[in-house]
Amino acid sequence: MTGGYPLLVADLIGVAVFAASGASAGVAKRLDLFGVAFVGFVAALGGGILRELVIGAVPPLAFADWRYALAAVAASVAAFWLHPALHRVRRTVLVLDAAGLGLFTVTGTLKALEAGVPAVGACLVGMLTAIGGGLARDLLTGEIPVVLQKEIYAVVALGGAVLVAVLHRLGQTGVGPLVAAATVITGLRIIALVRRWSAPVAVP
Amino acid sequence: MTGGYPLLVADLIGVAVFAASGASAGVAKRLDLFGVAFVGFVAALGGGILRELVIGAVPPLAFADWRYALAAVAASVAAFWLHPALHRVRRTVLVLDAAGLGLFTVTGTLKALEAGVPAVGACLVGMLTAIGGGLARDLLTGEIPVVLQKEIYAVVALGGAVLVAVLHRLGQTGVGPLVAAATVITGLRIIALVRRWSAPVAVP
Amino acid sequence: MTGGYPLLVADLIGVAVFAASGASAGVAKRLDLFGVAFVGFVAALGGGILRELVIGAVPPLAFADWRYALAAVAASVAAFWLHPALHRVRRTVLVLDAAGLGLFTVTGTLKALEAGVPAVGACLVGMLTAIGGGLARDLLTGEIPVVLQKEIYAVVALGGAVLVAVLHRLGQTGVGPLVAAATVITGLRIIALVRRWSAPVAVP
Repeated sequence: MTGGYPLLVADLIGVAVFAASGASAGVAKRLDLFGVAFVGFVAALGGGILRELVIGAVPPLAFADWRYALAAVAASVAAFWLHPALHRVRRTVLVLDAAGLGLFTVTGTLKALEAGVPAVGACLVGMLTAIGGGLARDLLTGEIPVVLQKEIYAVVALGGAVLVAVLHRLGQTGVGPLVAAATVITGLRIIALVRRWSAPVAVP
Repeated sequence: MTGGYPLLVADLIGVAVFAASGASAGVAKRLDLFGVAFVGFVAALGGGILRELVIGAVPPLAFADWRYALAAVAASVAAFWLHPALHRVRRTVLVLDAAGLGLFTVTGTLKALEAGVPAVGACLVGMLTAIGGGLARDLLTGEIPVVLQKEIYAVVALGGAVLVAVLHRLGQTGVGPLVAAATVITGLRIIALVRRWSAPVAVP
Repeated sequence: MTGGYPLLVADLIGVAVFAASGASAGVAKRLDLFGVAFVGFVAALGGGILRELVIGAVPPLAFADWRYALAAVAASVAAFWLHPALHRVRRTVLVLDAAGLGLFTVTGTLKALEAGVPAVGACLVGMLTAIGGGLARDLLTGEIPVVLQKEIYAVVALGGAVLVAVLHRLGQTGVGPLVAAATVITGLRIIALVRRWSAPVAVP
């Protein structure tokens, strides 16, 4: 984290949103409170843990800074008790999830670039940061990951990661350009949702 | 491993017990001998491998010390041949599994603390050491991990990890206090089994 | 990679073949184009990523050298469009897969030995390099890994890894002996396929 307090707050909001999505999946599968909190933790922090193992930044932030674990577990426990309400605000949750996608893509790509990963690899790491938690959430709950099946989600993250790599090459990694990049990713994801864009499936 | 020979023997017993549990799951799924040995290996050593990747202790002990792999594979092959007998002694197996839970929690938390992971993260790492192998066993055999669904298992490990962190803060990391902590975890797990304690599930 | 250009070319062929196998599994599960490319990427590079995390060689080659990612994605996209043709040449695909098994076992074992992993652990790492991608492919597509269920596949890799460790001990790690070892592994795998060798399954 190089962005200081504003970035930390934004990061923790992303963690909380992804944790709530993981926890909701756990509730739907009738997991117990521990299982719900665990799936929430993994959904929120799994992508970041994978990123930090890949770039050699150990121990990962999820274990090195207790605020990340606390944000994930608190949001998961809240989702456990409030899940009927979560369903009623599912549009809000989707918008927050899109914001999390934007944020995690930007921070993930940037951290990889700053750790010396070349641009192509850094874009892949950035995308994995954003989708890794959701992948793990689906595997833990016995589902084929939804990100592999339909909707434009990971591709938006990958495109956003390329944008971040270009900004990095141009030396434009101040708060302004990065917020703009996260906003573009979030906006594209919301448009993809509203317009029901989907990627092609092979003819059988 | 800082505890020398007694701790090594205890550790290998934990490995063998967890390997037998993994191997039994593999036999139940009609895996072949290799699959049974592989699931046993992962069930016994997967939690420790994850811990060592997270704290940067590479290569993990599972690859650096052949006695760990040998203990896991030997116990798995034995379970492959003896699995009807294993079923008859399933109460003994559950007690040994509780002992493995206690041991892996204590060693996992302590190794994380000694690698410089802060207390909250070290407790999470200790719990992951204890439950990670079982999680991987269930994923490999196509099940939603049982540790997420019912029973008091991971929570006992987490509570035990907190106890170890407190002992560490107090400078009480001799063999005595650590054996006491492992015994408390093992005892609580057995009580949870006998009393059929379970964590709450969300109302649908 | 210490073998220079010939080894790089061989490595990329192995990556492409494993990516095509992963992509085919993704097509069969009706994943979208992104999902097919992702499963292809993981099938081709997941084993190597795991190896490099275990030996501490970060960032893994899959992220550090764009040619690996490009080979995996290009082969996956080709398989997405050409999958009916792939089915017609499935014998060729099986032979190429056997070649990939031989190659990945040899390079995986050698890299582990050169990173200082002791012989037993290095053989396990070499085998994991060869089977790890296929394991991850099956988990992502909701299957119990085929390598755990039947056929002689991983055991051939493990035997080949032992051969490489012996050659390494004898100082015979030039291109000649290594190509011979890869050829032995590939040949044994093809014989196992043709003769329908399989490992024992426990009596229920």
